[in-house]
Amino acid sequence: MTVADQLGALLGPGRVHADAAERRAHARDCWPRLALAERCGVPSPEPDVVVRPTSTAEVSAVLRWASANGVPVTPYGAGSGVVGGAVAVRGGVLLDLSGLAGLVSLDDVSGVAAFRAGTLGADVEAAVNARGWTVGHFPSSIMCSTVGGWVAARGAGQLSTRYGKAEDLVVALEAVLPSGEVWRTLPAPRTAAGPDLWRLLAGAEGTLGVVTEVTFRLSPLPETRVFGGWLFTSLGEGLDALRTVMRTGARPAVLRLYDELDTTLVLGREGGALLVTVCEGDPRVVAAETAVVAAACARAVDLGPEPGEHWWAHRYDVSFTLPRVLSGELLGQNGVADTIEVAALWSLLPGVYDAMKAAMAAFASVVFAHVSHCYPEGASIYWSFATDAASPAEALERYDAVWSAAMDACRAAGGTIGHHHGVGQARAPWLAAELGAGYGVLRAVKAALDPAGICNPGKLGL
Amino acid sequence: MTVADQLGALLGPGRVHADAAERRAHARDCWPRLALAERCGVPSPEPDVVVRPTSTAEVSAVLRWASANGVPVTPYGAGSGVVGGAVAVRGGVLLDLSGLAGLVSLDDVSGVAAFRAGTLGADVEAAVNARGWTVGHFPSSIMCSTVGGWVAARGAGQLSTRYGKAEDLVVALEAVLPSGEVWRTLPAPRTAAGPDLWRLLAGAEGTLGVVTEVTFRLSPLPETRVFGGWLFTSLGEGLDALRTVMRTGARPAVLRLYDELDTTLVLGREGGALLVTVCEGDPRVVAAETAVVAAACARAVDLGPEPGEHWWAHRYDVSFTLPRVLSGELLGQNGVADTIEVAALWSLLPGVYDAMKAAMAAFASVVFAHVSHCYPEGASIYWSFATDAASPAEALERYDAVWSAAMDACRAAGGTIGHHHGVGQARAPWLAAELGAGYGVLRAVKAALDPAGICNPGKLGL
Repeated sequence: MTVADQLGALLGPGRVHADAAERRAHARDCWPRLALAERCGVPSPEPDVVVRPTSTAEVSAVLRWASANGVPVTPYGAGSGVVGGAVAVRGGVLLDLSGLAGLVSLDDVSGVAAFRAGTLGADVEAAVNARGWTVGHFPSSIMCSTVGGWVAARGAGQLSTRYGKAEDLVVALEAVLPSGEVWRTLPAPRTAAGPDLWRLLAGAEGTLGVVTEVTFRLSPLPETRVFGGWLFTSLGEGLDALRTVMRTGARPAVLRLYDELDTTLVLGREGGALLVTVCEGDPRVVAAETAVVAAACARAVDLGPEPGEHWWAHRYDVSFTLPRVLSGELLGQNGVADTIEVAALWSLLPGVYDAMKAAMAAFASVVFAHVSHCYPEGASIYWSFATDAASPAEALERYDAVWSAAMDACRAAGGTIGHHHGVGQARAPWLAAELGAGYGVLRAVKAALDPAGICNPGKLGL
Repeated sequence: MTVADQLGALLGPGRVHADAAERRAHARDCWPRLALAERCGVPSPEPDVVVRPTSTAEVSAVLRWASANGVPVTPYGAGSGVVGGAVAVRGGVLLDLSGLAGLVSLDDVSGVAAFRAGTLGADVEAAVNARGWTVGHFPSSIMCSTVGGWVAARGAGQLSTRYGKAEDLVVALEAVLPSGEVWRTLPAPRTAAGPDLWRLLAGAEGTLGVVTEVTFRLSPLPETRVFGGWLFTSLGEGLDALRTVMRTGARPAVLRLYDELDTTLVLGREGGALLVTVCEGDPRVVAAETAVVAAACARAVDLGPEPGEHWWAHRYDVSFTLPRVLSGELLGQNGVADTIEVAALWSLLPGVYDAMKAAMAAFASVVFAHVSHCYPEGASIYWSFATDAASPAEALERYDAVWSAAMDACRAAGGTIGHHHGVGQARAPWLAAELGAGYGVLRAVKAALDPAGICNPGKLGL
């Protein structure tokens, strides 16, 4: 019996798809390197079979069968990942979780809601908005990313400075372990009943099991929202302002600081570093945040609410640009473009910025960045780069050179190699060095939980 | 060669202590059951040897040797734990970390500071206060608890609603794995470079390795502090107010709500539920918090700042009361008293409160509680109980009966069995049920990282 036949017998009709169109449609996610490689004649790896479960029990059945038979299982949400994390590099089963979708429960007293892993971000917000709540997780990919992917890859929404990253929003989760065992954690505000073991799955990107349901913390829909725009003379001055704001305990939803080139692209004129701010929520809290922001930006030119309003209106545009880049429509068949996000402590951030910019500029014609997710002790840097090449092969070579230079420079300057896009295949070569002895811990945990090595092989270097 | 001789040869002079006084002094922590058992003639288990390392390298040497020789190693900070987590139940090495103390580094730009694991809480605050910072972790035990214990057992300070629990304050840590390998994590504000593996050690209570250094997030010393006191007609009304405050995003440092009996004990008169509030930090943020608190307490009687000020002045008194209870001075040789902290979602909290109170009151003459660590989705309940008995044996029996009833009732009502005292031995019988399949994960991780089973055996049921 083929894999498809065995799984068909196990799950019944309608769950298993082995036709060429399904396999091809699930051969790649949004990792730009795959599109580049295809232009060089290297096809993206297709799974042997696409399985679309509609219950946790079916996910369990697939993993139990896969562990027993040594067949790889690659979880797949909506394919918006940009590091090759949802690609079946060793064939086997592509576990498409889009059939495991929807709101499971909403507790209005506690302010928590549980969603199945395959629920699209936009559907998450719609479901809780109707009850007066927001999850507060707004990635650019909100229309094409899922709950499970958010948590598995530790994504961040555009308002993460206020609401936290995906893993910060988790109150409980349900997952299926590689053995097929179903694991539900107790929803509680905080505990000291052992370690938060579920956190192993946040960032494991499916290598330690499959997230099937997530209970998120909710916040009330914001009563008010205040936009701002501030022009600093330099990126360094802007960074000082961000740090000053975060130290007060105020948590504006958006503190988005563009470097000089990015500022020119956004404002259409040269000079300085633009900071876009959004404060939202309870009016009393927002008033304090607004005062804190204004004081921290005393040395900047106050551009009024327009830059913030403009950013807000266009905040999801990149989701529509990316497919056009990947298809070659926007940059041409030899064009190269991607984004790289990292993070560092405030004291290291200027050094990480300078080092990465110089390293990437050696291989890319355009390199710019913004700082967009702030914490009391540091922030992320979100790089965009683009360049042209004479051939698809040269384009791929340049792409790899930029990534390699960027990762090496980040590591050398003390930053973490990834803030919210995950590791997947793209960052795998640098992960062991960053984690040090922790990588040995990760491998030991992997061997203990997934002895057959079936769960998303080839990701995180596992 | 004896264990002491072998370790003496390994570490050199002055590190290894096998004399009766040292062994006896490290036979118990502050778990009341040990004192009760001693009154019944059951001595607390002494280690074979007390080792007091002064460097991470020495900790590493001890663990490498212990793993090779199958000798248990029990980490010990300052012995303030109240669940028997630092007791060498199987003999072997008591690893007293008090010699591994002090500030390692302080980064004023990022607002982070690294401390060796054996640093006492009061010394932590003194070191960062001198530079204008606070860690914000103020457990009642601050004068007799250490950095390593805070993180290993997931402690909470009295101002945790503002600053977070111990694990929320960690930016990076250094630990020694059971193999002896030294593991340092990268200090970064947030990452998506794999899971936060260090979190395995937060709550493992030394069963997966020994924390040797912790880098904490700092906050500026508060510029202002506003005290409040509010009298609600019932605990339920007070809980509604706490929930209302937390939903706004405001984070007062203290929201401490006493139940009716505890209110009577505090105020010296009957009726209602007292809420003590403290807001501290940046004056603009504190002003917003104060307004939010006042609005949420509109239905309560405003008692002015006095209740908050009084609580503040006496907030560490319990640290001086506990030894007198343990010694039998305060309650007599047959007296029984202890505290039990749990947590639950807001929707479950009244049910958890009612169920635990009824269950505990069946075996204790006095049972009261306060709610003192708040989160957007729920809060902790901190129980105190006391009773008398006719004999030490009956006292021990009652003590166990109260604990058992409390844990069972909490589980049945959907709460988590512990909020910040840890599991140790006291909660071990209920841990597997709470974690479900997660307990299998914990055991698999334990077997993978500590195959010889040397790290703090007998805790968490491991």
